[in-house]
Amino acid sequence: MEAKKIESIVEKLRPLYSQGAGDCPDAVLQGYPDPKNSIAGLRCLFEVLFPGINAARLGQQDLQEYLVKGIADASAYLRPEIERALPFRWDSESKPQSANFEEESHAIVDRLMDSLPHIRSMLIADVQAAYDGDPAALSYAEVILAYPGIVAITSHRIAHELYKNDVPVVPRIMSEWTHTKTGCDIHPGATIGKGFFVDHPTGVVIGETAEIGEHVKFYQGVTIGAKSFPLDENGKPIKHIKRHPTVESDVVVYSNSTILGGDTVIGAGTTIGGNVFVTKSVPPKSFVMREMPQPRIKTDENQ
Amino acid sequence: MEAKKIESIVEKLRPLYSQGAGDCPDAVLQGYPDPKNSIAGLRCLFEVLFPGINAARLGQQDLQEYLVKGIADASAYLRPEIERALPFRWDSESKPQSANFEEESHAIVDRLMDSLPHIRSMLIADVQAAYDGDPAALSYAEVILAYPGIVAITSHRIAHELYKNDVPVVPRIMSEWTHTKTGCDIHPGATIGKGFFVDHPTGVVIGETAEIGEHVKFYQGVTIGAKSFPLDENGKPIKHIKRHPTVESDVVVYSNSTILGGDTVIGAGTTIGGNVFVTKSVPPKSFVMREMPQPRIKTDENQ
Amino acid sequence: MEAKKIESIVEKLRPLYSQGAGDCPDAVLQGYPDPKNSIAGLRCLFEVLFPGINAARLGQQDLQEYLVKGIADASAYLRPEIERALPFRWDSESKPQSANFEEESHAIVDRLMDSLPHIRSMLIADVQAAYDGDPAALSYAEVILAYPGIVAITSHRIAHELYKNDVPVVPRIMSEWTHTKTGCDIHPGATIGKGFFVDHPTGVVIGETAEIGEHVKFYQGVTIGAKSFPLDENGKPIKHIKRHPTVESDVVVYSNSTILGGDTVIGAGTTIGGNVFVTKSVPPKSFVMREMPQPRIKTDENQ
Repeated sequence: MEAKKIESIVEKLRPLYSQGAGDCPDAVLQGYPDPKNSIAGLRCLFEVLFPGINAARLGQQDLQEYLVKGIADASAYLRPEIERALPFRWDSESKPQSANFEEESHAIVDRLMDSLPHIRSMLIADVQAAYDGDPAALSYAEVILAYPGIVAITSHRIAHELYKNDVPVVPRIMSEWTHTKTGCDIHPGATIGKGFFVDHPTGVVIGETAEIGEHVKFYQGVTIGAKSFPLDENGKPIKHIKRHPTVESDVVVYSNSTILGGDTVIGAGTTIGGNVFVTKSVPPKSFVMREMPQPRIKTDENQ
Repeated sequence: MEAKKIESIVEKLRPLYSQGAGDCPDAVLQGYPDPKNSIAGLRCLFEVLFPGINAARLGQQDLQEYLVKGIADASAYLRPEIERALPFRWDSESKPQSANFEEESHAIVDRLMDSLPHIRSMLIADVQAAYDGDPAALSYAEVILAYPGIVAITSHRIAHELYKNDVPVVPRIMSEWTHTKTGCDIHPGATIGKGFFVDHPTGVVIGETAEIGEHVKFYQGVTIGAKSFPLDENGKPIKHIKRHPTVESDVVVYSNSTILGGDTVIGAGTTIGGNVFVTKSVPPKSFVMREMPQPRIKTDENQ
Repeated sequence: MEAKKIESIVEKLRPLYSQGAGDCPDAVLQGYPDPKNSIAGLRCLFEVLFPGINAARLGQQDLQEYLVKGIADASAYLRPEIERALPFRWDSESKPQSANFEEESHAIVDRLMDSLPHIRSMLIADVQAAYDGDPAALSYAEVILAYPGIVAITSHRIAHELYKNDVPVVPRIMSEWTHTKTGCDIHPGATIGKGFFVDHPTGVVIGETAEIGEHVKFYQGVTIGAKSFPLDENGKPIKHIKRHPTVESDVVVYSNSTILGGDTVIGAGTTIGGNVFVTKSVPPKSFVMREMPQPRIKTDENQ
C-alpha cells in the first residue's frame, strides 16, 4: 500500500483508541501483561509437575537439576507479568491498592511455588480418576501425555493459586490458553476438589463461583453456569456474588448438560444424563434423565 | 525406510492426485493461498485494532509508527495470498472472471484497510458488551487479553470484509484459524451487528447467511444453522440461498441451543434457554425454555 | 526466587513422583514418546496426502521428490517414537511382549506407509462428501485448506492404522493434537467408513469401539459415547469391550445430540435431530426429533 494511504487510515484510527482499549488510562504506555511470557511460565510449571512430558530424554540423575531449573524459569517468566498485571485490579473494590507492585509480585510468586507440592498431590488423584474413569485409558503415560482433562485441571490448579492471591488478568490468560488447547473453560475462581476428571472436555464451562466436590466426573459440553445476574442501579451486573452452582462429591454429569444458578446444589452421588437443562437443586443420589423421543419411520411425505 | 520401498508407495499414490485435490486443474502447480501468510496478516490487523496485545512494551510515542507498520505488514502478507486465491472463485457463478488478479488484489486490500476505522468502532461496542455482560470481567484489559469472544468477533469482522469483496478461501482460512483458537465457527458471510458478545464461545456455529442484530448475546454451543438444503437437479445442495436464521437485536441464547432454518426469525428481545432445539420463528420478547426432568432417587434396582 | 527456597520446594516435590507419574516404573529415566516428534511426523503425512497445503510454491516437476521426502521424513520422526511407546502397551494383556521394540517399530512404520494409498482413496471420498454436503463450500481447495472435518478424518485414518498395529500412546497423541486443532475427539480405535463428513466438528466425540458406516454426516457437538461400563471385581471399568454405538451408512446426526451404548444401533438412512439424547437402537430410515417448547411472551412478572 502507498504510505500516504496508510497514514490517512491511521489518522482515522487514532481517535478510536481513547475508549474501550483499556480502563487503565495509560494502559498502552505502561504495557499489558504479556500473554507469551505468562504461558511460558505456565509451561515450565507443567514440566515440573509432570517431569518428562516435554523433554523426552530426561535422565533420573538430572531430576533435581531439572526441577530447580523449572521452578526458577517459571518464576522468571511469571514474576514481571504479575507485577504488570497488578494495576489492573478492579478499582471498584474498596481494598487499598498495593504500595509496591514489585514487592508484592515477589511474595505472590513465592506463595505460588510453595503450593506446588499440594498441587502435585491433587494431580495424582486427578490422573488416577482419569485412568479409573475411562476404559480406553491403558497406561498413566497415556493419561499424562494425551488427556486434555489433565491439561485443563493442571492449568486450573495453578491459575486458582494466583486467583486466590488476587492477581488479575494473568490467571485468565492462563485459563484462556487452556481453553484454546483443550476446549475447556474453567474460570480461575472455581473451587474444585481432588480426583476431578473431565473426559473429552471440549465445550465444558465452569464459572467463577462454582464449587465442586471430590471425585466429580464431567463429560464434554457440560456447563456449570450462571442463570441470571442481579443488576446494580446502572443496569450493570454486580460483580463478585455467588452465581454458579455447587456440585457435591461423586457426581457424574453426561455430555452437553447445562446446570445453572448460584442457589442450585447437585447432591452428592447424583447422576445427570446428557442434554439436560437443570435450573433447580437436585437431591443426593438421584438420576436426572430425559426421555428419548419416539423414532418415526420416514415416509414420502415427511422427508 | 528403504528408498525403494518409498518409491513403490509413491508410485501407487501418484494416480490418486488427479481427483479431489483441487477443482482448479493446475492447483498444485499454481499453488494454493498460503495459510501461514494469511494468518500472519490477520495477526497484524489484530495488533492494529488492539495496540499492545502482542507487544507488551509499546510506548505511546511509537503509536503512529506502530500503526503504520502494522497496516503495511498486513498488506504485504495478505495481498499476494488474495491474488493467489482469486482463481478459486466459484466458477459456476455467472460473473465474469477478473481480467487481472494482481490489480484486483491491490484494490481489495485497499478497501479492507479503509474499513479498519469502522471495524474498530464496532469492536469498541463489542468489548463494552463483554464487560457489561459478564460479572466475572473486572477490566477492559482482561476482556481484550483473555476473552475468546473478542478474538472471534475481531477476526470475523475482518474476514467479513474480504467476503464482501468476493475473495474466496482466504476469509475461510481466517475463520478456521479462529475456530481452532476459540472453538467458535462464524462463517465469513454472516452479518453481525455491533455490541455482539459470545461468552465461552466453544462450539458456537453461525452459518453463512445468518443475520444477527445489535447487542445479541450467545453462550457456548449455540448453533445458528441450516435445517435442510434444497437440492439441484443433480441432487447437490444449491449454493448461495438464505438457509440460516435471522436473530433480531437484544436476543440472548443460552448454552447448547440449536436454531435452524432460513425462514426462522427470533424476534427482538427474546430469550432462548439452554439445550433447546428451535426450528420455527419466535415472536419478539418471548421466552423459549425447556422443563427440567424430575429427579428420581437411585435405588438398588435402577442403578 | 532464592536458590535455597527453590531447593526446599523441590525437596517436598520429589517424593511425589513415585506414584501417578507413569505405570512403567522407570518411565522418567527411559523417556516418554515425544509429542513434538509424533506430531511432526503426522504433519509430514498430511503434506503427502494433500500436496501443497503447507508448501504453497510446490511445482509439479517436484511432486515425485516432494512425496519421497515427505514419506522419508515422516518415517524418521515416527519410528523412534513408536519404539519408545511400545513398552507402554497395556501389561494386563495376555499377549507376549515384543522381543525387540526397535525391529517391531520398523515393521509398523512400513505397514503404515503401505496404507497411504488406501487412506488417500478414502480421503477423496471424504473431501467429496464435504463439498457435496455443505452449500457454503465453493471449491475443493476451500475444503482442503479450511475444513476442520478434513483435518479430523485425515488424522484419524492415520492414527487408526497405528492403533490396528497395537501401538500405544502415539496414536492418542495424534488424536489429541487433532482434538486441540479441530475440537473433534475421535478415538484412534473407532472404525469409520468412507465419505465421512463432520461439519463444524467442535465438541464431536467418537469413542474407541464405535463403528460408523459409509457416507455418514455429523454436525457439531455430536457424541457417539459409552452409557456405562461394566466393572471388574475391583470396581474398575473393564477395558476392551464394545461400549460405543454402531451407526450405519447414510445416517445424519444434527448438532449436540448424544448417542450412547455399545448395544445401540442407528439404522441406515436415519436422521437424528439436534439436542436429542439417544440410548436405544433406532430402526433404519427413521427420524428422531424433539418438539420445540412453546414460546411464552415475557411479562413484568416472568422477566
